[in-house]
Amino acid sequence: MSLLIAGTMAFDAIETPFGKTDKIVGGSATYAAWSASQFTHTIKQISIIGGDFPEEEIAALKAKGVQFDGVEQIQDEKSFFWSGRYHMDMNTRDTLITDLNVLEKFNPQLPDSYQDCEFLMLGNLMPSLQTQIIQQLKNRPKLIIMDTMNFWMDIAMDDLKKTIGMVDLLMVNDGEARQLSGEYSLVKAAQKIMDMGPKFLIIKKGEHGALLFHANHVFFAPALPLEEVFDPTGAGDTFAGGFIGHLARTKDISYNNMKTAIIIGSAMASFVVEKFGAQRLKEISKEDIAKRLNQFVDLVNFDIDIE
Amino acid sequence: MSLLIAGTMAFDAIETPFGKTDKIVGGSATYAAWSASQFTHTIKQISIIGGDFPEEEIAALKAKGVQFDGVEQIQDEKSFFWSGRYHMDMNTRDTLITDLNVLEKFNPQLPDSYQDCEFLMLGNLMPSLQTQIIQQLKNRPKLIIMDTMNFWMDIAMDDLKKTIGMVDLLMVNDGEARQLSGEYSLVKAAQKIMDMGPKFLIIKKGEHGALLFHANHVFFAPALPLEEVFDPTGAGDTFAGGFIGHLARTKDISYNNMKTAIIIGSAMASFVVEKFGAQRLKEISKEDIAKRLNQFVDLVNFDIDIE
Repeated sequence: MSLLIAGTMAFDAIETPFGKTDKIVGGSATYAAWSASQFTHTIKQISIIGGDFPEEEIAALKAKGVQFDGVEQIQDEKSFFWSGRYHMDMNTRDTLITDLNVLEKFNPQLPDSYQDCEFLMLGNLMPSLQTQIIQQLKNRPKLIIMDTMNFWMDIAMDDLKKTIGMVDLLMVNDGEARQLSGEYSLVKAAQKIMDMGPKFLIIKKGEHGALLFHANHVFFAPALPLEEVFDPTGAGDTFAGGFIGHLARTKDISYNNMKTAIIIGSAMASFVVEKFGAQRLKEISKEDIAKRLNQFVDLVNFDIDIE
Repeated sequence: MSLLIAGTMAFDAIETPFGKTDKIVGGSATYAAWSASQFTHTIKQISIIGGDFPEEEIAALKAKGVQFDGVEQIQDEKSFFWSGRYHMDMNTRDTLITDLNVLEKFNPQLPDSYQDCEFLMLGNLMPSLQTQIIQQLKNRPKLIIMDTMNFWMDIAMDDLKKTIGMVDLLMVNDGEARQLSGEYSLVKAAQKIMDMGPKFLIIKKGEHGALLFHANHVFFAPALPLEEVFDPTGAGDTFAGGFIGHLARTKDISYNNMKTAIIIGSAMASFVVEKFGAQRLKEISKEDIAKRLNQFVDLVNFDIDIE
C-alpha cells in the first residue's frame, strides 16, 4: 500500500526581502515528497521533468523511499520553471517568470505498480490532469486530497469543480476559499465548498495558521511565530506532505487524527521557510521534529476550568 | 481590593458593510467594564463623560458592581464621540469623525476609595494621562496592563515609552507592535518591546487571534471563526476586560493563568462582535460563556504522540 503524490518537480528562482537564489529545485511534488518521507517510506511520485532535472535530487529522494516509475523525463526539454518575488509580508508575491516547458506535455499515465495506492495527494496541477489521475486508479484510494490555486478558478472553474467533487479533502488558501465560494466569511465559505463534495476542507492562512473544517466542526492549527521567515516557497506543499505523510503512516483518516496531522504539517512548514528551497527538510532529524511539535503543544495548550 | 479600569466612556456611530448605527454608547472603559463584570464585581471606573451620557447606561453598569466615583461628569458638555466606517475585512477602518469634547479636559483624579486597587487596566488614552493615573496610586497594583494605539506612537512616542516602562503588560495590535519596535517579525518585535519594560506582551491580530509573549515563551489564542462579524468596535477592549476580569477573579497573575485569561478574553470578544455596541455583553449568561469556552477548547485541542 502506498502514498501517491502528483504535482510539479521543477526549478524556482526566488527573491525575498532577505535574499535571492539562482535556479534551485522546487515544485509541489518535490516539497511534498521531502516532507512526507519523514513519516512514510512508500511514496510514489507522479510528475514530469526535463533532462535538466538534477540526478542528485532524484537519487536523494530515492534514498528516502520515493519511487519514480510515474515520473516522465523528457531528456531534450527543460523542467518547469517559476520565478517570483515576495513582498515584505511574505504572504503575497509577484510572479516574474512562468516557463511551462515539459509541463505543457504532461499526460500522466500511472504504471501498474501505482495501483496499490491507498493515499493520493494531488498537488496543484491543471484540474483535468488531477481528474485523469483519479480516473486511472482501479480502486478508489482510502483518501484523496487535493491542492489547487486561484489561477484555475479564473480559467477552468467547471473542470475544477468536477475534480473537487471527486476528492475527500480540499486544501486552499483563504483568498481562494473566498473566490471559490463567493463568500467572505470563511465559515460560510467552508460550508459552500463542502457542499461541492469534499467532506473535509483545509483553509491555509500562511503565517496566521490553518483551519480544518468537517461537517459542523472546526479545528485551528496555528503557525509557529518565527523570528525570520526566509523563504515561504513550498510551505503549502510541505504542509500537505506532512499532513498526508502522518495519515499514511497511521492509516487513520478520522477527523481527530487529521487534527494531529494538520499540526504535523504546520511543524514541517515551519522548518521549510527557514532556508531557501527544501534544504531544511533534508537536514532535520526525528528529534528536531519532535522538539518542534512540543513547541506547538506549548503554543496552544491551556487549562480551563469551565464553571 | 478592586479592579480599576481607565479609558473612554463615549458615543460611537458605526458603519459596516452590514449596517450602520446612529450614536450608540461605546468607549474603551465601557466595553472593558461590561466584559470584566462577568467575572469580578468590584470594578472602579476612571473616565470623563458629558451631560449627554445616558443615565440608564450608568445605572446598568452600577447594577453589575461598577463604581463611578472616579468618573467625572461635566453636565454642560458633550461626551467624546467617534465615528468610523469598517472595510469588508472588518480589520481596517476609516475614522470619519473624532469629537474630543470632554476628553480635552480629562485630568484624572483618583478618589481615596480607589486606593485599594489591586489590578489596573489602562485603556487607550493619552500616555501622559495613563502615567498620571499610575502615579496617583500610593501602593503599586499587583498588575498593571495598558492598551494604546498607533496615534500616540506618531505624536507622543517619548511619553508613550515612559508609560510602557511602568506597566507589567502591554497590549497592542500587530501593526502597532511593528511600529513601536521597528521590527517586522512579531517575535523580534516582542523581544524589543519587552526590553522597554513590560514582562508580558499581548499582540492582537483581530480575526487571526492573539499572541501572549513572556520571556522566551509564546502562547497563541485563536479567534473563533464566525459566520458573521457584525461590528468589531470594542472587540479589543472587551478582550482586555475579559482578560483582566479573569485575573482579578482568580488573583493569579502567573503566565499559565494568563493563557486561560487570554482565551476568556477571546471568547468575550467573539460575543461582542455579534451585534452593534456592547449589546451582546449585556445579554449573555454564564452558560453562554461556558459554552463558548468549550468551543475554544474544541477549536485547538489535539492529541499528539511525540515519538
